[in-house]
Amino acid sequence: MEQKELLYEGKAKQVFATENPDYVIIHYKDEMTAYNRIKRAIIAGKGALNNKITTIIFNHLHKAGIATHYINNLNDQDQLCRNVKIIPIEVIVRNIAAGTMAKRLGITEGLKLNNTVYELCYKNDDLGDPVINEDHAVALGLADYPTLEYMRAQTIKINNVLTELFARAGITLVDFKIEFGITPDGEILLADEISPDSCRFWDAETGEKLDKDRFRRDMGNVYEGYKQVCDRLSNL
Amino acid sequence: MEQKELLYEGKAKQVFATENPDYVIIHYKDEMTAYNRIKRAIIAGKGALNNKITTIIFNHLHKAGIATHYINNLNDQDQLCRNVKIIPIEVIVRNIAAGTMAKRLGITEGLKLNNTVYELCYKNDDLGDPVINEDHAVALGLADYPTLEYMRAQTIKINNVLTELFARAGITLVDFKIEFGITPDGEILLADEISPDSCRFWDAETGEKLDKDRFRRDMGNVYEGYKQVCDRLSNL
Repeated sequence: MEQKELLYEGKAKQVFATENPDYVIIHYKDEMTAYNRIKRAIIAGKGALNNKITTIIFNHLHKAGIATHYINNLNDQDQLCRNVKIIPIEVIVRNIAAGTMAKRLGITEGLKLNNTVYELCYKNDDLGDPVINEDHAVALGLADYPTLEYMRAQTIKINNVLTELFARAGITLVDFKIEFGITPDGEILLADEISPDSCRFWDAETGEKLDKDRFRRDMGNVYEGYKQVCDRLSNL
Repeated sequence: MEQKELLYEGKAKQVFATENPDYVIIHYKDEMTAYNRIKRAIIAGKGALNNKITTIIFNHLHKAGIATHYINNLNDQDQLCRNVKIIPIEVIVRNIAAGTMAKRLGITEGLKLNNTVYELCYKNDDLGDPVINEDHAVALGLADYPTLEYMRAQTIKINNVLTELFARAGITLVDFKIEFGITPDGEILLADEISPDSCRFWDAETGEKLDKDRFRRDMGNVYEGYKQVCDRLSNL
C-alpha cells in the first residue's frame, strides 16, 4: 500500500492517504505533548511502542467482537487502517479517580470508584476539551443519540475486556480515553489508539505509574514505563 | 409557625427552623450575588419579587403533578416549606444556548437548540460548580442512579410545563436551574426557588432580558426586569 499525501497531523500521529480511499496509513510519532502542547518532547522509540501496544490491544478487542479501524502493521511505526471520520468526542472511562477528574471534582487520586465513570469531552483544543454529556454532543452536532448510545455500549464492553486483559499482565487499568470514527457507509469503529499515551496503567502490586503521567509529572523513565507495558502484554 | 434558629444561609435565601422539624421558613433576601460572590449588591424588593414568582410557579407545578417543598407564604419575603436535605446538584435545562454553556462550548448565545440540553453541576463553590454527569454524581455520593433518573424525568416535565406557562406570559424560557431535596422519609421534592435569579427569561417578541443577566452584565434596571416577570405571571 503506497503512502500518499498527509491528511491530518495530530499530537502523536500522522494520517496519510493511500491509493485506496478506504484506507489510510497511520504513523506513530516519537513526539510527546502534554497540557495542550505546552509541554513537548521527543521520546525515541515511543512511536514504535505505542504502535505495538495498540496493535496487541486492537487485535484482542477484535477477537472479543469490537470492530476497530485497525487492519495490519506495515512496519514498526506505521499501521494500515480503515479511513474513518473521527467523531470529535473523547470517550473516557474511569475505574479509579485520577488526573483531571480527581482535580475537577475534588476526589483524592487513587480512590477506587464504586461505579465505573463514563465521561465525554468535546475534542476541541481551543476550548480545552470541556466535559460534556450526550445532550451537549447532540446540540453541538457531534453525533446523534443512537450513535452515542452505541459508543457507550461498546465502551463499557471495551472496559470489561481490557480490565481483564491488563489484570493478567499485572496492570491496573485506572482510566482510558478512546475515540470512534465513522466509515463512509456509516459503520462506527473504534479508532485512534489505546496506549500509555491515552490510558493510566498502574502496576497492580506496587501502584507504580507506567504511563504518560511519567512525562506529565516529570517522573522520568518514560520510555521504560511504556516498554514494560509493551513487554507484559507481549508475554501474555 | 414560629421562626427558630438559622439553619443555613445561602447567597439569596436564609433557611430557619420552626417548632416543627418537618417545616422550615425560607426567607428571600434582597441580596444579589454573581460569579461566585465576586459581584454583590442589594436590590430592594428583589426578595419579595422572587418569593412571589416562585410561589406562582410552584403552585402551577403542583397543579401539574410536580411535588415541591412549598407549603404557603407567611409574608412578602417568607415561605413555609417542607424541611428537605438539598441534593448538592444543580439541575439545568437549556432550550436556547446562553451563559456558561455557550461560552464553554463555543456556541453563539441565542442559538435555539435542536434538542433540550439537560445538564448537571456539582454544587460546590470551591470547585466552581463543575459540570458532571450521572456517573460522577454517583461516584461523588451525591445521589444514587434511581434518584437521578427520577430527577431527570421530573425536570423534563417541569421544562414542558414552564415553557408553556411562560409562553402564555410572552416570555421565552431560555434556561433554568433547579434543585431537589429529600424529606426524612425519602420523598424527592423540587426545592429551592424558580425565579429570575435562577432562570433566563427573554421577552418573546423583543428578546429583551428580564433576568439576572441584567445584574451579571451591568445592564441596569434589575428590579424592573424581575417586576415585569412577576406582573406578567400574576396577570395570567
